Amino acid sequence: MKLARQLEKLGTETAFAVSAAAEQWGAKGNKIYPFHLGDINIATPDNIVEAAKKAIADGYTGYCPGAGIPQLRAAIARDVGAKRRLSYSAENVSIQPGGKPVIGKFLAAVMNRGDEVLYPNPGYPIYESQIEFQGGIAIPYGYLETPMGFDLDLDAIRSAITSNTRVLIYNNFQNPNGAQSSPQEMEQLAELAIRHDLWVLSDEAYFEIQYSGQPDTIVSLPGMQERSVILYTCSKRFAMTGWRLGAAIGPQMVIEVFNKLNTNIESCTTHFIQRAMVDAIEGDTSGPDAIIDELRRRRDAAVDGLNAIDGISISSPNSTFYLFPNVTTIMQRKGLREVNQLMDEALTATNVSFCTRNHFGRVTEGEKEHYIRFAYSGIGVEDIVEGMAKLKGYFDK
Amino acid sequence: MKLARQLEKLGTETAFAVSAAAEQWGAKGNKIYPFHLGDINIATPDNIVEAAKKAIADGYTGYCPGAGIPQLRAAIARDVGAKRRLSYSAENVSIQPGGKPVIGKFLAAVMNRGDEVLYPNPGYPIYESQIEFQGGIAIPYGYLETPMGFDLDLDAIRSAITSNTRVLIYNNFQNPNGAQSSPQEMEQLAELAIRHDLWVLSDEAYFEIQYSGQPDTIVSLPGMQERSVILYTCSKRFAMTGWRLGAAIGPQMVIEVFNKLNTNIESCTTHFIQRAMVDAIEGDTSGPDAIIDELRRRRDAAVDGLNAIDGISISSPNSTFYLFPNVTTIMQRKGLREVNQLMDEALTATNVSFCTRNHFGRVTEGEKEHYIRFAYSGIGVEDIVEGMAKLKGYFDK
Repeated sequence: MKLARQLEKLGTETAFAVSAAAEQWGAKGNKIYPFHLGDINIATPDNIVEAAKKAIADGYTGYCPGAGIPQLRAAIARDVGAKRRLSYSAENVSIQPGGKPVIGKFLAAVMNRGDEVLYPNPGYPIYESQIEFQGGIAIPYGYLETPMGFDLDLDAIRSAITSNTRVLIYNNFQNPNGAQSSPQEMEQLAELAIRHDLWVLSDEAYFEIQYSGQPDTIVSLPGMQERSVILYTCSKRFAMTGWRLGAAIGPQMVIEVFNKLNTNIESCTTHFIQRAMVDAIEGDTSGPDAIIDELRRRRDAAVDGLNAIDGISISSPNSTFYLFPNVTTIMQRKGLREVNQLMDEALTATNVSFCTRNHFGRVTEGEKEHYIRFAYSGIGVEDIVEGMAKLKGYFDK
Repeated sequence: MKLARQLEKLGTETAFAVSAAAEQWGAKGNKIYPFHLGDINIATPDNIVEAAKKAIADGYTGYCPGAGIPQLRAAIARDVGAKRRLSYSAENVSIQPGGKPVIGKFLAAVMNRGDEVLYPNPGYPIYESQIEFQGGIAIPYGYLETPMGFDLDLDAIRSAITSNTRVLIYNNFQNPNGAQSSPQEMEQLAELAIRHDLWVLSDEAYFEIQYSGQPDTIVSLPGMQERSVILYTCSKRFAMTGWRLGAAIGPQMVIEVFNKLNTNIESCTTHFIQRAMVDAIEGDTSGPDAIIDELRRRRDAAVDGLNAIDGISISSPNSTFYLFPNVTTIMQRKGLREVNQLMDEALTATNVSFCTRNHFGRVTEGEKEHYIRFAYSGIGVEDIVEGMAKLKGYFDK
């Protein structure tokens, strides 16, 4: 029996192999310092847990509309709109079982086979996989490292645009590099999207994970709302990764397509979880606030730990829970050419587990620097300090 | 901004329009008799609810493997295997957010663009939609009405097979007509699938909804297990439609593709719900048994009510919670040509809401008989009796 030919184009998240390696090494009795996980080891806030229990008891256990329950669609429209100075209503919101489903459905809604899609690389590996699996042409764009973090390589984006470019995927508050656009950078990107009449997926999974100040979105710029779909998720802000609740927010015309795709793909998202979130979205923020406070402590410990290593110098990102240090100097010192070799050796030498640039999209031609990615969402401050010290011992050698 | 061209091929479940019409009519102060719903108005068994609460409290709120948690995969493998005299292990099971996701992912895994796919029509409308949206050619096959229910039109299936036929979708315990294959019929279908080397999706959503005896599956026949994927769902047996939990069960080679698609599409299925089901799948059957008992009472009341109508004669299906009476005589008596007109008039004349053949795939050439579909999963016995009496008053006229 043969499988379908198009599966050759289907990618995956290779970071799961890192989890598997860490688990194997841990099973041998080693205490792992898990910096590879994008998951959050913090409990979901109590008010949400209690609301979910009540929703089950109240009988919200049957089907609900494929688009999501009207109350949650309205609550997300108000909340997302208010935080972005945009006007949305329930009809602009399609509830999804997580943020990730927004990627594939967005491409199904706006991309024809053969269309070129600009996507960040290094970036979330599912962009590349879904573009290619659905018959698009994945055109990567990169970032330029600065003393303050990472800037979009706007010149590269500009020169990559052709008459076949139809879609731009943009991940401000970026995974893996924590990049956050300046207002000027965002304006230049918006100008390109408008001039070339591109659809934009604004992946805002980390919009609410901010350690100071108010975040901005490209969707708020003039001419952008009508061409943009926001990827929204409850996973990060509410420490709900395993609950699977997110949404697509955008022009009604596209959202109706998402709703129809929901009917085709999964019927609806878990009913009682939607009910539980109606109040939580706009309600008590003490749970989410405590999550941010904990993540901030972890960020500070991890940044300090990395900067104590000879040859690593990183700034402290204001968003996400990722750090993406340049380890080119360390690679040279150790005489290594493959960054995954550094990862493998670090695990057995120090029990510290992390991902590398290679887990975030195919490496593109001409890349000379080496990067590794630390997530501090799944490891507490004490272990961060301990793990970073061990890593320093190994990296400094 | 333009949407993708392939959306022209995306279908939907038009039955939602029936729900909307019933709701509108109900909002005017009319008491609706809801026979249109495929949902279940029975509570999820207590042991499952309690297990879910415990799983949340125990912290199963983060990500889990895309394939599903190993314990649930193993439990479903044992249970599904034991009830079908087949040997499956955890590696043959991919957990899904419901039964429906199995349809689209199965086609993505085994169908090339341009392949012909045989599917039942009348049947679940998502088959047709997903085949065509994913670039396949949907080839319908029908059923022959007998005094005992419906038989597969095997001659039509035989003559529809070409060198491009690659996939067969088969829904024993059928929605909408309740058809259940005899052993001979299943053997003949299996013989065709093997001779023409077809992949088979065995949609077994109603396998556990049996009012007497033990069900069979085509997958148990020699030569079938290696070419078949079973669509499994917790929705019906456990009255969990809104929880969204199901699985694909099949050869490991295909299941690995399902797992990779999970990683691309939705990361994973809600973690604590999976945890809750580990024991329930093989555990206390008093909850599911009570659901079957209640559905049996409803079936008997609905069958009696329909057979009391002049011109309707149906047998009592042993499975599903659907009845699919032939209303050609009634249409003639009323001088109607469009069965949806009968539906519309019945709603306003009697407050009884039901679907028609037209909601279950495109009507094919040469169909002369008219059918309507009653679901008795969302309406209690008392209302069934009351509603059927009103319908008789209107249909008999």
